[in-house]
Amino acid sequence: MIKAGIIGATGYAGVELLRLLLSHPDVEVAAISSVSFEGKPISEIYPSLYQIDDMTLGNQEDVIKKCDVVFASLPHGLSEEMGRKCFDAGKVFIDLGADFRLDAADVYTKWYGKEYNIPDIHKEAVYGLCEIFRDDIKKHRLVGNPGCYPTSAALALAPALKGGFIETKGIIVDSKSGTTGAGRGLSQNLHYADCNESFAPYKVANHRHTPEIEQTLSKIAGEPVKITFVPHLLPINRGIVSTVYADIKSGTFEEIYKAYVDFYKDERFVRVLPLGKITNLKEVRMSNYCDISLFYDKEAGKLIIVSAIDNMVKGAAGQAIQNMNIICGFDEAAGLGMIPPAF
Amino acid sequence: MIKAGIIGATGYAGVELLRLLLSHPDVEVAAISSVSFEGKPISEIYPSLYQIDDMTLGNQEDVIKKCDVVFASLPHGLSEEMGRKCFDAGKVFIDLGADFRLDAADVYTKWYGKEYNIPDIHKEAVYGLCEIFRDDIKKHRLVGNPGCYPTSAALALAPALKGGFIETKGIIVDSKSGTTGAGRGLSQNLHYADCNESFAPYKVANHRHTPEIEQTLSKIAGEPVKITFVPHLLPINRGIVSTVYADIKSGTFEEIYKAYVDFYKDERFVRVLPLGKITNLKEVRMSNYCDISLFYDKEAGKLIIVSAIDNMVKGAAGQAIQNMNIICGFDEAAGLGMIPPAF
Amino acid sequence: MIKAGIIGATGYAGVELLRLLLSHPDVEVAAISSVSFEGKPISEIYPSLYQIDDMTLGNQEDVIKKCDVVFASLPHGLSEEMGRKCFDAGKVFIDLGADFRLDAADVYTKWYGKEYNIPDIHKEAVYGLCEIFRDDIKKHRLVGNPGCYPTSAALALAPALKGGFIETKGIIVDSKSGTTGAGRGLSQNLHYADCNESFAPYKVANHRHTPEIEQTLSKIAGEPVKITFVPHLLPINRGIVSTVYADIKSGTFEEIYKAYVDFYKDERFVRVLPLGKITNLKEVRMSNYCDISLFYDKEAGKLIIVSAIDNMVKGAAGQAIQNMNIICGFDEAAGLGMIPPAF
Amino acid sequence: MIKAGIIGATGYAGVELLRLLLSHPDVEVAAISSVSFEGKPISEIYPSLYQIDDMTLGNQEDVIKKCDVVFASLPHGLSEEMGRKCFDAGKVFIDLGADFRLDAADVYTKWYGKEYNIPDIHKEAVYGLCEIFRDDIKKHRLVGNPGCYPTSAALALAPALKGGFIETKGIIVDSKSGTTGAGRGLSQNLHYADCNESFAPYKVANHRHTPEIEQTLSKIAGEPVKITFVPHLLPINRGIVSTVYADIKSGTFEEIYKAYVDFYKDERFVRVLPLGKITNLKEVRMSNYCDISLFYDKEAGKLIIVSAIDNMVKGAAGQAIQNMNIICGFDEAAGLGMIPPAF
Repeated sequence: MIKAGIIGATGYAGVELLRLLLSHPDVEVAAISSVSFEGKPISEIYPSLYQIDDMTLGNQEDVIKKCDVVFASLPHGLSEEMGRKCFDAGKVFIDLGADFRLDAADVYTKWYGKEYNIPDIHKEAVYGLCEIFRDDIKKHRLVGNPGCYPTSAALALAPALKGGFIETKGIIVDSKSGTTGAGRGLSQNLHYADCNESFAPYKVANHRHTPEIEQTLSKIAGEPVKITFVPHLLPINRGIVSTVYADIKSGTFEEIYKAYVDFYKDERFVRVLPLGKITNLKEVRMSNYCDISLFYDKEAGKLIIVSAIDNMVKGAAGQAIQNMNIICGFDEAAGLGMIPPAF
Repeated sequence: MIKAGIIGATGYAGVELLRLLLSHPDVEVAAISSVSFEGKPISEIYPSLYQIDDMTLGNQEDVIKKCDVVFASLPHGLSEEMGRKCFDAGKVFIDLGADFRLDAADVYTKWYGKEYNIPDIHKEAVYGLCEIFRDDIKKHRLVGNPGCYPTSAALALAPALKGGFIETKGIIVDSKSGTTGAGRGLSQNLHYADCNESFAPYKVANHRHTPEIEQTLSKIAGEPVKITFVPHLLPINRGIVSTVYADIKSGTFEEIYKAYVDFYKDERFVRVLPLGKITNLKEVRMSNYCDISLFYDKEAGKLIIVSAIDNMVKGAAGQAIQNMNIICGFDEAAGLGMIPPAF
Repeated sequence: MIKAGIIGATGYAGVELLRLLLSHPDVEVAAISSVSFEGKPISEIYPSLYQIDDMTLGNQEDVIKKCDVVFASLPHGLSEEMGRKCFDAGKVFIDLGADFRLDAADVYTKWYGKEYNIPDIHKEAVYGLCEIFRDDIKKHRLVGNPGCYPTSAALALAPALKGGFIETKGIIVDSKSGTTGAGRGLSQNLHYADCNESFAPYKVANHRHTPEIEQTLSKIAGEPVKITFVPHLLPINRGIVSTVYADIKSGTFEEIYKAYVDFYKDERFVRVLPLGKITNLKEVRMSNYCDISLFYDKEAGKLIIVSAIDNMVKGAAGQAIQNMNIICGFDEAAGLGMIPPAF
Repeated sequence: MIKAGIIGATGYAGVELLRLLLSHPDVEVAAISSVSFEGKPISEIYPSLYQIDDMTLGNQEDVIKKCDVVFASLPHGLSEEMGRKCFDAGKVFIDLGADFRLDAADVYTKWYGKEYNIPDIHKEAVYGLCEIFRDDIKKHRLVGNPGCYPTSAALALAPALKGGFIETKGIIVDSKSGTTGAGRGLSQNLHYADCNESFAPYKVANHRHTPEIEQTLSKIAGEPVKITFVPHLLPINRGIVSTVYADIKSGTFEEIYKAYVDFYKDERFVRVLPLGKITNLKEVRMSNYCDISLFYDKEAGKLIIVSAIDNMVKGAAGQAIQNMNIICGFDEAAGLGMIPPAF
């Protein structure tokens, strides 16, 4: 039984992480913190937890002191120092924000408008896309947990790029996300009456997850990969569908499909659907699964890959737990047995 | 480890029951059946279960033969004979339909248009409202699992009626339910474009759950209780809120509130909220909780009780498992540890 | 062609009023104002109006100066002075807020926490519930436009109270409203992910519309009427359904139904549905209709009335225009010919 | 005042057309028909029309006989004969189905599985995409009203193809549609609880609207255009957003944007948004507008065009009326002045 804690437990990813950790067989949640609600019980902020977990929100020092594994779910720019402290104190640190995802400091600065103030600590970090970098993750104690869109895009493209089946240029990632991806902060476009029955893209070809996706895909491909990425906001709570278009360079569609099945055959959280079946976001909701289905536009020579995840689970809290499980030597699926409800 | 099975596993309650049983620590799901989809894997009907449970749907004979506990989730009129068979074979039989809920045969016939064909078997049945009839449930092996509205109404009114705080006449139950209450059958008013952004009552003062609610409340009160019951259809998937109005006969509001807290103080699935807090359906969604909050209209002398449950869990599959746990001597909360997600 | 203007044109009621006035055959929208967005085109705040109406938002002085009819859609407490100015300048003033709805200054103070600072001006005001007070409205130039819940409740109860069919005590109004009723202000419970798939009552037996409903019903009944009023928030954009319960005092159900049909037979915006039909909010959405259906709980001796309106139209902007039409001598339905869409 | 009628008035497009025609200043709706509901008042099928239009549904012969303009909203394969009859009788015939959209009989057969049985009549038909083929439409009396997706895709791409700015190969159209696009027929995936909170593509690279889009784009470009088309189902009622990706062949982004503004500068129903603004489906809902916004992925050399329409209005009933207006010499915007509501 290890002690785990959450810094920033009242954000959407934070409270989902708490919910999942409370059911983890190898974990005791020893401390949680919140800057905005310090001193209040978490169940006052989220009454769904009333009588289930009425723990009082403390500060981040408490969390670091009391816990072996520290999860941070914070706005970017705030995790570096905490990562440093935890690392030096021999803890496991898993950051759900963006501060440990990008290798290149200048890319981080370009997209996030901040500097890497403690450059050394980034050398200790691993990018926690479990299915792709598992072996590397095992050797680290500091994890940059992947973004939600990057998880959906990278898992969709990895087998095709690894196998050299598609061109590395001209890839299009057209993603659609539920509103929890935008977090708990209030804004007019997320006000119920404004968002309900609406649909639109946002940050067209200009979203911060673009360099993160390209970094991962380039590593997988072994050469620079460029994508055009357009996210859209779905008027639903949870889930991301990414529809990905790529030009086929070699191999038949059947070979490519077989390569996907093989690539993920031992993975417990990636389901490559039978040919002809179509990925639907609702079939992974509330779970740690990533579903993938493949299609072929023969006349255009294009491979179409559709992936779906729950942005709050596989795209955030669930994958964070999966990373903890890998590092701590637990069953990789421990605490992640949630079965998606049919409705 | 007992063997459990589901007759009618492809309806909404059936598949939710399957989902929950798959995570139950003391249960192995040994067989499932469906008349419409016999011979197909359940994951073909519900792709959310792909690679999680690809069990083939058999027939009801299989289920009865292979299982110690048989759950039936069927249209009314079909469970009597199965109840007879299971009872005679020494099995536990838990019926999620209406066939074993009503004591009086003529009331059943009036509201459901069918006869009790095997009158004897009804003497072996218990009404499975766990918090109210727990001691009685322990002595039975055949359960009429309560309807969703009756669960929400009876738990809301039990302490007030038991304590003699309210009049037994003039009670109003204004309930609002998500669409899964209506089941999987297609109908125009549940077609997405018709139902979305709509709201209306249905079966006004004429719903089949009325006699079931009155039967339970009368038992609790020790005298005949009459209610006016109006259900409404909410354009959401899950959950019921019942807003209940009753005339206060004796006691102060504070005394009544205290009586509620005391009544449910040892219950793991009923949460009486602190005064001033308001029950919201989303805070019990996906869980077996029933939340209750109390209000007082001083000028009108009325007690207002608001209860919320997830109609598919506490109102169906969850309570069915709770009944099994009671009868089989498991921890009453086994397999029911689901924490409601914050969103 | 008269000149009309809107003070507070960027709130939900304000922009809906603008939308409707732009299609009114006898009206030219001469000026609109907003404190928050003065100097900006309205179409920057609401891009749906781009190239349709790009008028710049001015200040309230502009509106009063340029217009014959001034609509105000403002937080309570701000309309009194404007009413005074408009009245003195010979304008028609229609207030969509609460400042001119309540006769008794102390009741206003109790529920809204402010004083009537210009008591005299309230004597010039009429309560603009068109179907009930039409003759009186014609003689006035200053209108307190009814609240949304009060409109739905009063139209539901008027014929029964007028005819002396029901008791004036013990009436219950259980209302359910879409989120536009809460306005444009951001709040956590209206954040999309919090509100979606949720349902709860709010301000239970403690909502500001209670005294307004009671004032109207008492006038209609000719004696004091007390109600228990519980509003609920529906996760949809528009519409209110009120389910109203009252004890029948005299008359058969058939007589009562006939009285409803007679009472509203010449009304263009109230539809008493045939017996057996059930009011659904979607059938009045985007229109100025109020639909009413009647039910009878024989055993309990209760009359159940279900009414539905679009809170933004009949409950706000539409009724405001109807009031203008009555006062200005236009066809009462001018500019209000919107047919509710089927979906 | 011309007499218009609708064959198939109870489908989603049919009833929306009826609703709009009832407010058209130059039209009297003289007859409506339905095979399923012949002999019933339309307001029994759609109670939103109660007391507004209680016209009885007749048969198609009635409609053809009584009307100058006949609209047909029927499953494919049923319109050919009606088109023949109406044309021979000197009527205007506007078909909202697919039977008169495709020039090539073999393409129709390939995608719709039926033959052109009356080949001659197709020579009399014009493809009714108003903004592109207006001059041609004026000379015809038989119109194949465009499909919803084709309208959104063709208006999005027309200026770029016309100006030779983009490659004619490799174009990707990723569309998302509300559920009214699927029509009134019941199906499991459109059952409320199945569809709500879900999102998925369907008929990936295999949708019948593909050849229609390619036919139109090829005419505009003057050479064969091939697209990859993937539609998705949005859990909302109305509206289509198409996100279109194309490789830029010549011209700067500024030149392209200017070409769009110029192309549509005299159009009353196409709004090219200012640079930096993003098209949102809610801003065209319930109206005949098509909104278009343009983006540039410089590194990838791609033009990204986002268009939005209301699938039931500009994508069906509204455009049908626009075609009637053009042919009959009415103001092109007559009866189409609906302003999109802000929420």
